[in-house]
Amino acid sequence: MRNLKLLLAYDGTEYCGWQIQPNGPSIQQELSDAVFRVTGERRHPVASGRTDSGVHALGQVALLQTSSTLSPEVLRKAINANLPSQIVVHQIEEAPLAFDPVRDARWKLYRYVFHDGPTPDVFLRQYSWHVHYSLDVAAMAEAASVFEGTHDFRCFESQWPNRVTSVRTIRLCRPIRLGDLVYLDVEANGFLYNMVRAIAGTLYEIGRGKWPISMARRILEEGDRRIAGPNAPAQGLFLVRVEYAEESLVPPPTP
Amino acid sequence: MRNLKLLLAYDGTEYCGWQIQPNGPSIQQELSDAVFRVTGERRHPVASGRTDSGVHALGQVALLQTSSTLSPEVLRKAINANLPSQIVVHQIEEAPLAFDPVRDARWKLYRYVFHDGPTPDVFLRQYSWHVHYSLDVAAMAEAASVFEGTHDFRCFESQWPNRVTSVRTIRLCRPIRLGDLVYLDVEANGFLYNMVRAIAGTLYEIGRGKWPISMARRILEEGDRRIAGPNAPAQGLFLVRVEYAEESLVPPPTP
Repeated sequence: MRNLKLLLAYDGTEYCGWQIQPNGPSIQQELSDAVFRVTGERRHPVASGRTDSGVHALGQVALLQTSSTLSPEVLRKAINANLPSQIVVHQIEEAPLAFDPVRDARWKLYRYVFHDGPTPDVFLRQYSWHVHYSLDVAAMAEAASVFEGTHDFRCFESQWPNRVTSVRTIRLCRPIRLGDLVYLDVEANGFLYNMVRAIAGTLYEIGRGKWPISMARRILEEGDRRIAGPNAPAQGLFLVRVEYAEESLVPPPTP
Repeated sequence: MRNLKLLLAYDGTEYCGWQIQPNGPSIQQELSDAVFRVTGERRHPVASGRTDSGVHALGQVALLQTSSTLSPEVLRKAINANLPSQIVVHQIEEAPLAFDPVRDARWKLYRYVFHDGPTPDVFLRQYSWHVHYSLDVAAMAEAASVFEGTHDFRCFESQWPNRVTSVRTIRLCRPIRLGDLVYLDVEANGFLYNMVRAIAGTLYEIGRGKWPISMARRILEEGDRRIAGPNAPAQGLFLVRVEYAEESLVPPPTP
């Protein structure tokens, strides 16, 4: 049995998310089906974390356990040949048998994409949130910096309490403007359910001038989801990168 | 009656092209339906030229004749509110009653997008042609320059002869690399059926090293469509801009 670490990208538009669901197509199911067609084994790859319906990934990581003896590159090409065009495996590497894509993840980087141009961009409609206000990125950046550090983020958790703790460390929370696009990058050691979308929705209210910058601190301190902003829509959200501790990835010695 | 010049963008992925067809949804039909819902008038807007099934537009121009008295900006917003998200009107301007979007077009700029990265990009799959060879852009550029100028382009016409003349002037034919993308810009005073896609397919054969650069001149001189390259797939093609003579656009005096 081998452990393989898959780096994959997907367009989440037409999927109900990563996780296999009874009510719609999932990334996990498509990947499992492709692996089955290649290896004859029915495995469910495990991702670093679920992504929700409509959320995209540039660099999701998944673990595949297989007894196939094909090389990583041959497997990668064969799996890609059996995947729909919305999903692609960019890389496959051997991983230690102890590798756990959920537990060993150190940092995850998400990007939320706002588009505040005067008219919608038809090519970005599934990959951004078109907002009808010009966003004040300087105000958003000042508010965003309040969220950096180690805090109890229950104010951004959709279904609190649903975890042992809602304390997380955000090491980067920064919006950057590029033309009519505002990229909000949020990197943390873990995320609560809908956390990035709630941060994006909160910064949206500040960026469009409905709320003062000081509202960011008040939301964080009060810890009440009801006073934070709405969850920004899923189609603007991308899982960009998952970072692992190097020691968790030392591959087993080649036999 | 007023003549309005519409500047519009569309994602052609799910459409059978600009022109109303019996066998599928068209951009023209969607626009006509939206105008009908806004003005109560059944009009078929006329574009600068048809785009084929799957081809996109960043800056298509269409003429709408209407007796509506709504201002251009109010009309624009109302039409956009009635269009599917794949189509957007970026601008509406008054145009002379004599304005003819086909005849008065001076230059049209098309862009063809190749992607030659090692694995497909799921977010560009509907907006580029993923090729399995690394393209030699310097070779493509040298070959492309042969097509600049005034020539008989029957070698790139899918259904020759279907026009009075196949002589056209290309004032720009140039590929540019940006990372894993190669943008081929072709600007001409008119295009034959499938001309840009045939040029793109020909430069592809040269870029991947199947043909020498000198093949470009041979194809042009022999004028035989059968020896040129294949038509590159529609999803990589964008109508970027249509340029009109200034005098054709002088609006009528406000009454």
